[in-house]
Amino acid sequence: MSLTIKLTITPHIINLNLHPKHRTKIPAYSLGFRPKPIYHSNALIPILYNNKQPRMSQASVSGSVIKSSLIEPDGGVVVDVIVPESERGSKTLEAESLPKVRLARIDVEWVHVISEGWASPLKGFMRENEYLQSLHFNSLRMGNGTVVNMSLPIVLAIDDETKENIGSAKDVGLVGPAGDLLAILRSTEIYKHNKEERIARTWGTTAPGLPYVEEFITPAGNWLIGGDLEVLKPIKYNDGLDHYRLSPQQLRKEFDRRQADAVFAFQLRNPVHNGHALLMNDTRRRLLEMGYKNPILLLHPLGGFTKADDVPLAVRMEQHSKVLEDGVLDPETTIVAIFPSPMHYAGPTEVQWHAKARINAGANFYIVGRDPAGMGHPTEKRDLYDPDHGKKVLSMAPGLEKLNILPFRVAAYDTVAKKMAFFDPSRSKDFLFISGTKMRTYARTGENPPDGFMCPGGWEVLVKYYERLQAEEATPAAVSA
Amino acid sequence: MSLTIKLTITPHIINLNLHPKHRTKIPAYSLGFRPKPIYHSNALIPILYNNKQPRMSQASVSGSVIKSSLIEPDGGVVVDVIVPESERGSKTLEAESLPKVRLARIDVEWVHVISEGWASPLKGFMRENEYLQSLHFNSLRMGNGTVVNMSLPIVLAIDDETKENIGSAKDVGLVGPAGDLLAILRSTEIYKHNKEERIARTWGTTAPGLPYVEEFITPAGNWLIGGDLEVLKPIKYNDGLDHYRLSPQQLRKEFDRRQADAVFAFQLRNPVHNGHALLMNDTRRRLLEMGYKNPILLLHPLGGFTKADDVPLAVRMEQHSKVLEDGVLDPETTIVAIFPSPMHYAGPTEVQWHAKARINAGANFYIVGRDPAGMGHPTEKRDLYDPDHGKKVLSMAPGLEKLNILPFRVAAYDTVAKKMAFFDPSRSKDFLFISGTKMRTYARTGENPPDGFMCPGGWEVLVKYYERLQAEEATPAAVSA
Repeated sequence: MSLTIKLTITPHIINLNLHPKHRTKIPAYSLGFRPKPIYHSNALIPILYNNKQPRMSQASVSGSVIKSSLIEPDGGVVVDVIVPESERGSKTLEAESLPKVRLARIDVEWVHVISEGWASPLKGFMRENEYLQSLHFNSLRMGNGTVVNMSLPIVLAIDDETKENIGSAKDVGLVGPAGDLLAILRSTEIYKHNKEERIARTWGTTAPGLPYVEEFITPAGNWLIGGDLEVLKPIKYNDGLDHYRLSPQQLRKEFDRRQADAVFAFQLRNPVHNGHALLMNDTRRRLLEMGYKNPILLLHPLGGFTKADDVPLAVRMEQHSKVLEDGVLDPETTIVAIFPSPMHYAGPTEVQWHAKARINAGANFYIVGRDPAGMGHPTEKRDLYDPDHGKKVLSMAPGLEKLNILPFRVAAYDTVAKKMAFFDPSRSKDFLFISGTKMRTYARTGENPPDGFMCPGGWEVLVKYYERLQAEEATPAAVSA
Repeated sequence: MSLTIKLTITPHIINLNLHPKHRTKIPAYSLGFRPKPIYHSNALIPILYNNKQPRMSQASVSGSVIKSSLIEPDGGVVVDVIVPESERGSKTLEAESLPKVRLARIDVEWVHVISEGWASPLKGFMRENEYLQSLHFNSLRMGNGTVVNMSLPIVLAIDDETKENIGSAKDVGLVGPAGDLLAILRSTEIYKHNKEERIARTWGTTAPGLPYVEEFITPAGNWLIGGDLEVLKPIKYNDGLDHYRLSPQQLRKEFDRRQADAVFAFQLRNPVHNGHALLMNDTRRRLLEMGYKNPILLLHPLGGFTKADDVPLAVRMEQHSKVLEDGVLDPETTIVAIFPSPMHYAGPTEVQWHAKARINAGANFYIVGRDPAGMGHPTEKRDLYDPDHGKKVLSMAPGLEKLNILPFRVAAYDTVAKKMAFFDPSRSKDFLFISGTKMRTYARTGENPPDGFMCPGGWEVLVKYYERLQAEEATPAAVSA
């Protein structure tokens, strides 16, 4: 399709003179003009890095049906390494004959992530070649020279005994923690697991007390085994939440079914308060202003490992349901699904993974806030990461150029308006910051947060969870002699 | 120029049917075919990542004079931020009026490096935007979307008092350790110096005892100041070695003058033994076999900070001279010059810097060996880095695609042939590995290394240095009361 459009270009805005009905201003970035990223601390101004013409204009110009996907998955196709049902029997027989690797709980989460293509184009646990690129460059160079983002090493550790047991076998069977055969790992490569270097380069610290490190790296073996996965059947948890675990392919289909012309993803591991809701609704409003007709919110809580004091997944899912029931978010334009990845709490390194995985799930906008994937420094009284580094690193990350990054300004409780509002530095004294820790303290102590902080239905879910938790903690674990 | 060449392509070799005299096989990589890197541990097989047709074929086909440079500097031009003599007076006056930053010795080395364009396209100390990209991605994305390698943060630290003193001034004067005004830093940006994160991401460890860290980062201030440099006059050391300090522009001119059609750079911080010479001569032989007519060796010892037990620069330069005098290397086809950068001892991260800087100096081939820029772990009994990671990371590094990486196999002392030879694993017992540490021990104890390890003239330089050193150490520093 060829098309002539009259453009008036100012440094940051392009007036796109289409049909009068669609005449609109769009950020210059979105037509491929890419000035240096500018960080707006005082406004939700999207920084768009889209090299393609926005779907909005295509749709409005051509009048055609919205294309099947808004953003190409990394590597061109969503990886799917789940064995077809017809081959399950023979592959299972084969797997039984192979040397075995026993998986930890965290490994199963990664098998799940890889199997559905969240980490596309990765088809299995990283070989050394991929591991080194991930560790040093946060990205992988593909055979055709293109670069995809890959900021976290997705690796499988084995101990000396397992390595010896594998010997020179090229394929191994992967066995779940309960002893069930889950997958085959093909054309494997075993290489050294230098834990210190992995931790230093991933977290930017080697201080003791990093949750993922303490739980899963320190106790892990001194070798890594990479290879291509064949997963014998879809990973299920049977926790009553599997229906929330939509795969990237299922999400892409759902976005198409709803004829979304923009999908904006919101990653979270905490209950949704009205500040979150404010910015999600505000993002939608701005996308509509930009000319999108049907922006869909992907509310995408992380479902894998989280640290002990985070609110458990089941409670969060119940809370999110209430938020939609109470009308704080619009169910018509929202999809709630679980992102199966575990948390690293690796700040600017991890936020790239969070964004990249959502590209594969079909989201073309990604919302990023203050200190994404951050936590307190484990041994010092400060944030582990500079709270602004996450969005800066994200906007500069190799392989994420096709994703529109939406930094937002901080929302806080406005004690004058008695509601969550965007923080206004000119009257900073009026604002109350309620961190995740503080919110959990409110709920735990039974104290009510300020009116308008969270919808009552959602709050009740949290209060009840902490009541149960305290009751459990008060109960002796066992009757001692 | 248009030209038809008959090609026979096999996976790794292309037969290029030129004039019968020039008919040759060249690696497929060098015509832009880029399969996965293959690491040959047993042979010096160049892995070529040149996207352009090799100069060899251009020259032999067209018969024209060799073009002025073999490889484009990063960003297209070699940065030169030394103030022209005509402006020196006025700029010095201006600098005197500005708030001052007092430089440490290491900062002056970096001013030198930046001023001559080794770090092109970097025009000054990094602002946060560049610092974060360097730390997380080992590369910088340019305005036009291209990527250049930049693996080490090149930053200037200041303390709280200096920051306060600068206040809101945008330009500052940089003052050398002796109090002399060296440069202006323009349009500055001050941001936090998170030392722990910088160290962890650069070295992959935070263990105490890293030489660069202990000397220059731990004592440094908690802020970094970035900006564009204007250097008032060329940095000189007046140590009798300044004539060896050729800038990238001077080197490029010299390669042109010599009509080099390939320049292969050899980075070192140790005396040259016959194993080094073997592989440099072998590389030349192979380049000639590949069809190059006049390959020039850039023997490029590092001249900035090195750790205390490394052999000092002046001694190394004298030793290198002897190696050329003794005919171990051919002076006709060798250029000896000093690379003014300090050492980080940061292994796979630093070797990228070593290679990238040589692109800017006009070298299109880079030789990489075992454990480049490596050292022992400061607190554990092992190498800090996997000895193979350097060449692997180098071959995958963003922004280095245009450089031909030449990994080489290890040379060792062949006790049967009584000379340095490429290590043959099939008769490993015949070989004696003589590390830098072992070589220094020989020289220090006055013991002779095996015959054929180093040319006698070169060895004598080392022995005399250690004799002087021991005499000095035996002399009381001062007569105490």
